[in-house]
Amino acid sequence: MLTHTEVMSRVSRMQEQLQAKGLDGALFIFAIDVYYFSGTRQNSTLWIPVEGEPILMVRKSLSRAKEDSPLKDIRPFPSSKEFAGILPPAALKIGFTYDVAPVQHFNFYAKLLADRELIDISLLNREVRSVKSPYEVEQIKASGDALSSVFAQVPDFLKEGMRELDLTAEFECRLRKSGNEGIVRMRAYNQELSGGLAVSTGGASYGFLDGPVTGRGLSNAAPQGATRDIIARNTPILIDYVGVFNGYNTDMTRIFVIGTLDPELQRAFDLALDIQNFVQRELKPGAICEELFFKALEIADKGGFGSSFMGMPGEQARFVGHGIGLEVDEYPVLAQGFKVPLQAGQIIAIEPKFNIPGKGAVGIENTFAVTPAGGQKLTNIPDEIVFL
Amino acid sequence: MLTHTEVMSRVSRMQEQLQAKGLDGALFIFAIDVYYFSGTRQNSTLWIPVEGEPILMVRKSLSRAKEDSPLKDIRPFPSSKEFAGILPPAALKIGFTYDVAPVQHFNFYAKLLADRELIDISLLNREVRSVKSPYEVEQIKASGDALSSVFAQVPDFLKEGMRELDLTAEFECRLRKSGNEGIVRMRAYNQELSGGLAVSTGGASYGFLDGPVTGRGLSNAAPQGATRDIIARNTPILIDYVGVFNGYNTDMTRIFVIGTLDPELQRAFDLALDIQNFVQRELKPGAICEELFFKALEIADKGGFGSSFMGMPGEQARFVGHGIGLEVDEYPVLAQGFKVPLQAGQIIAIEPKFNIPGKGAVGIENTFAVTPAGGQKLTNIPDEIVFL
Repeated sequence: MLTHTEVMSRVSRMQEQLQAKGLDGALFIFAIDVYYFSGTRQNSTLWIPVEGEPILMVRKSLSRAKEDSPLKDIRPFPSSKEFAGILPPAALKIGFTYDVAPVQHFNFYAKLLADRELIDISLLNREVRSVKSPYEVEQIKASGDALSSVFAQVPDFLKEGMRELDLTAEFECRLRKSGNEGIVRMRAYNQELSGGLAVSTGGASYGFLDGPVTGRGLSNAAPQGATRDIIARNTPILIDYVGVFNGYNTDMTRIFVIGTLDPELQRAFDLALDIQNFVQRELKPGAICEELFFKALEIADKGGFGSSFMGMPGEQARFVGHGIGLEVDEYPVLAQGFKVPLQAGQIIAIEPKFNIPGKGAVGIENTFAVTPAGGQKLTNIPDEIVFL
Repeated sequence: MLTHTEVMSRVSRMQEQLQAKGLDGALFIFAIDVYYFSGTRQNSTLWIPVEGEPILMVRKSLSRAKEDSPLKDIRPFPSSKEFAGILPPAALKIGFTYDVAPVQHFNFYAKLLADRELIDISLLNREVRSVKSPYEVEQIKASGDALSSVFAQVPDFLKEGMRELDLTAEFECRLRKSGNEGIVRMRAYNQELSGGLAVSTGGASYGFLDGPVTGRGLSNAAPQGATRDIIARNTPILIDYVGVFNGYNTDMTRIFVIGTLDPELQRAFDLALDIQNFVQRELKPGAICEELFFKALEIADKGGFGSSFMGMPGEQARFVGHGIGLEVDEYPVLAQGFKVPLQAGQIIAIEPKFNIPGKGAVGIENTFAVTPAGGQKLTNIPDEIVFL
């Protein structure tokens, strides 16, 4: 169970932001936000007033929510008549997460609170959640250790003649046994991830995923990740997986090769390491997110691989790293348009990758904490290509 | 790839409904709806006019969408200036799925279409999708066969001394190798499922999942499914898994026991079979959904297990079966409030279960097609408890 101190320190950081924006409080209805501020991922709505104790209103399960959450006021979800009376009458301006609230749910609350104003706090909420507490950093370190330990086992089970799908299944089996929770949570609309990717030349494919490598997947309904193709000798096998432990995600990628690697792919991989190492050194409070992306792009261009950086030709992703925590796609993003400075305690997955059609995808990914000394690596096994 | 005939027959069924409601067309933005009507699950928006050919506007990946979809008009997502011009000027009343569209996305489209009216078609869309085409029924049969084959292997890998988590990992590994796509899609807000549950006495737990059995899970962040507890002798081991193949879900549950079973649990299991068999016989076009639930409840009450039917005391689910297809929680639901008749071609998972605190959860689940002769079982292995 989270401590009352931990939860209230998160609530206080939100309250400061609400106060700064002139809001009287905020309603959270999305399960992951509710978990962050309450310590329980039951189906509930959380009222955070600009000052004072939150109120958790639970649809299901009330008894589990009471077991999980250190909050002092946990009650059944009220009737529609009672709802407005639970919020203070003076609370007229109320924050609401427009990014993850369906229109039907928004309309439900807007009707219950007809004389109040609901105001979008999606960005503010993502900013608050982007800075991790020491407790959260510990959880993410533990997540990185567990995920790394599965990557370290790959040479034991990666065999010639396997299908990409078999490699995926063997990896996921060991990840699950190590305590992986089985669901990767993504906030962005219409994005989803089945844990990760274990792909060979099919890695260099077009797909919906907002990332550098997607894989073709098993069908047009699930066009992502492994195929039924046999893994070939002398091709890069890219394994990119998210580990989820106690709710916290870490993200890493390693390359494995049975045999030898095309020198062009080796050069691209070495360039990815250069980019990662550069961004890691700069991963300090105050660094401007988009500048790190532009510099990464410059290194890729100078190295001669600009046209295959971060995606397939014509559909390249415009980032080199992303925030990560309870969701795999948290703020900030090292991407064009993110003119904000990094803050200590943010956690960033850096993932420079190159997609070379017909040859395959190579690159590296590790999860780092932003510190005054640069990025602290939390997925701590060697980066080099593993030749089998 | 879906055929143009298959996709256009789905589109036509939607067009008939739009016409009946006096709408001029509908915009679909949710990936699973877009897949259903277009054959591609790329990140796209689909315009279905009340008459004529749909237009698929693709954010990412355009090249993959063109490979996947038989639709004739597939184009890049237009600029904000161009968007309104793509829809016919006479299209003033436009259907939109309020159940799965975030407020931010709704506002984006409402602004682009400021002189038109967006109208909620969530219910209509779920009703259209609830009736499966012969192609879809074939896909669901194949999904049921693959899922059943993994259930049939359980006696090979379920061993005394395993943790619930190990059983989960071994089951998921085999399911994945058989072609399971790794993501169970749920439409209901704040619901999620990590593939399924493999639980022993911890099955009888309180949780957020809108179902009879939830499991305690590995943490408060993921309070669902297996725990790290060792599976005990002489307790019911409930395995409830969803298989996803070519996008299509099937859902089944079986009970395994190492040793012998408490006679009270055996009686509850036998009663679950009676309820399933009753509902299966009645699963014919014209049967009223909620009446099947009420009759199931009556059988549970008469059998002396009403207070543990479909959930933990005080938090019992009010249904006995649910529609299933591209999502695990489709329409119709055999639940209070569903006064609609069943239709041929609907697919229903019937899952009577009993949760007896301190003793465990027992029950059965199979996926059936609604036919004039009653439910046709698509998850075709024996229902009986497997004793090891």
